[in-house]
Amino acid sequence: MGILDEALELVRGAVRGMKGYVPGLQPSPGQRLVKLNTNENPYPPSPAVLEALRSAIDESLRLYPSPDAAALRSQAAASHGLQPAQVLCGNGSDEILSLIMRAFVDEGDTIAFFQPSYSLYPVMAAMARARILTVPLPRLSRGEEVRDLPVPSVRAKIFFLTTPNSPYGYLFPPDWIASLLSSFRGIVVADEAYVDFAEESSLPLLAGNPRLLIVRSLSKSSSLAGMRVGFAFAHEAMIAEIMKVKDSYNVSRLAQVAGSAALADDRYARAARNRIVATRARLTERLAALGFTVLPSRANFVFAVPPGADNARPLYDGLVRRGFLVRHFASDGLSDGLRISIGTDEEIDSLLASIEGEMHGGQ
Amino acid sequence: MGILDEALELVRGAVRGMKGYVPGLQPSPGQRLVKLNTNENPYPPSPAVLEALRSAIDESLRLYPSPDAAALRSQAAASHGLQPAQVLCGNGSDEILSLIMRAFVDEGDTIAFFQPSYSLYPVMAAMARARILTVPLPRLSRGEEVRDLPVPSVRAKIFFLTTPNSPYGYLFPPDWIASLLSSFRGIVVADEAYVDFAEESSLPLLAGNPRLLIVRSLSKSSSLAGMRVGFAFAHEAMIAEIMKVKDSYNVSRLAQVAGSAALADDRYARAARNRIVATRARLTERLAALGFTVLPSRANFVFAVPPGADNARPLYDGLVRRGFLVRHFASDGLSDGLRISIGTDEEIDSLLASIEGEMHGGQ
Repeated sequence: MGILDEALELVRGAVRGMKGYVPGLQPSPGQRLVKLNTNENPYPPSPAVLEALRSAIDESLRLYPSPDAAALRSQAAASHGLQPAQVLCGNGSDEILSLIMRAFVDEGDTIAFFQPSYSLYPVMAAMARARILTVPLPRLSRGEEVRDLPVPSVRAKIFFLTTPNSPYGYLFPPDWIASLLSSFRGIVVADEAYVDFAEESSLPLLAGNPRLLIVRSLSKSSSLAGMRVGFAFAHEAMIAEIMKVKDSYNVSRLAQVAGSAALADDRYARAARNRIVATRARLTERLAALGFTVLPSRANFVFAVPPGADNARPLYDGLVRRGFLVRHFASDGLSDGLRISIGTDEEIDSLLASIEGEMHGGQ
Repeated sequence: MGILDEALELVRGAVRGMKGYVPGLQPSPGQRLVKLNTNENPYPPSPAVLEALRSAIDESLRLYPSPDAAALRSQAAASHGLQPAQVLCGNGSDEILSLIMRAFVDEGDTIAFFQPSYSLYPVMAAMARARILTVPLPRLSRGEEVRDLPVPSVRAKIFFLTTPNSPYGYLFPPDWIASLLSSFRGIVVADEAYVDFAEESSLPLLAGNPRLLIVRSLSKSSSLAGMRVGFAFAHEAMIAEIMKVKDSYNVSRLAQVAGSAALADDRYARAARNRIVATRARLTERLAALGFTVLPSRANFVFAVPPGADNARPLYDGLVRRGFLVRHFASDGLSDGLRISIGTDEEIDSLLASIEGEMHGGQ
């Protein structure tokens, strides 16, 4: 056996068996594509955030950041009616999800989630050698409501509930989550990366439910995907346990500054959010008029199934040729649709024109 | 059992048993302390870094960062004579160490390290339910050299070698590490957070040794502790395995910009490094003249044992009263000394005056 093979033998079996990470398609520098594939906010971050960042660029960057991101933690608590001890700050909500796995999931434990939902959960399970239990999430027919979906009856350490769901956009209302918390005996993680585009969240449930962990992100709601700021909200005793497993300095000085400034300028984020919600309604209506089936979304994207074809890949390819990058999932059960991030009104108008062009074979 | 107890029952036993994280002592805003306790670089980051950061603060922060930190990865490779595929970028070197654990260490595996060395290793072991094997690191007497220390004979998945060691400051020369790689059959992690203050590193060993992983940080060498930029250097096949276990977007846009600019301005970092090395020599000499035993350091700190007392705590407390924060470890075998970060010449001069004051009971 060669020395490289000897070295690779030392890698965990669970990791050797995993596929390498394939980054999402990113336009190359020369390529001009309207990017509607990764649910970024089409509007810039608040000017107050950019200004706060500029003011923070000084020699203090030589010093370690606050280990618990104290100022950001206080701001996040104040913005959500919580105590600072109920908040944990992370390097994006992906890190928060990893920390939750590290705090709660032993080898052989089970984690449960809807299929489809966030594709990171099975990857995290593989790394932790955890078992996976998936619950099929049906497509709602006209007139059906998310609140009428049966609460899954499962046994697991954690139920990861993406709400709003990706890629379907369904929001699970607080009453539904309360039912889940009653019937399910494990931890419910309400993964609310997209919740700011909805009207309700699981936040009111936090007070009476130490088994509820809420995960948030500033990536979409505050246009800060590039800064990596995520949160967990939970009972302070649960936060204290998760805190034990994080790296000492997991949130950089500038991420702390950007996060605090973004939360303090809630009016700006709210205005951008309202524009996105209005554009979402218009896109939904126009796509429906073109014969698409559009699932009821409370997120900053819609899942839309074009008429008359089993697979939306040809439409996806046609849109790429016309300069639009949306998301097509090759996996079973999703390949008939496209997930389209809500861009600006101009972007969505030209996307719609291109979709019409593709459907009618025009330019 | 109450609902909170039920929730806490769901935390992993390995985590429940851990002590909560206690952040290092940070001066409160009103407190004016010269901070020589966490090995930060006393000089500001390069002006080129601050300028690059200012230029990067724009609406692109709404977009996710490059998943593999492509530009930073290329710059780090070029700066170290490597290929980009041999480099992994992380949210500080603490994240790199966590990723290495996640890629290589299964429950029940053993990790080995010198005692004393970086206090994070046993914490990582506890989280992974890994066994710990510690090898005592002796204090060198006058005339003894690190190269003469026997290579430990251990069986483990990983040997974490802090080099230069903290808190002793010993640099393990490449020949010594080559011997370790020959006799030890696991992964050798050369944790080189402080190596830029030394004259040699394990980098020349990388080509022939896929079992060698080198961990670096810009926290100290480039005065960027606040930005969180760390690296792993290794064989590209090993990097590809570690890459599988990282979060998709683990390094923020601004951290990528700061890291690239810092590495590109090597001359600046080199000049600051040379000042620190000169100050280290002067501090070592002056402390020795005061009767301290000072271990031979190749890092940006020294471990110094004051004369005539079993415990350096009273001296530590006296220095705090005089406005200086250094590091005292209460643990067995370290309580007789102080770890002093190398500050500016002015800071070290006034520290020395205060030490003299403490020793002679003066002001």
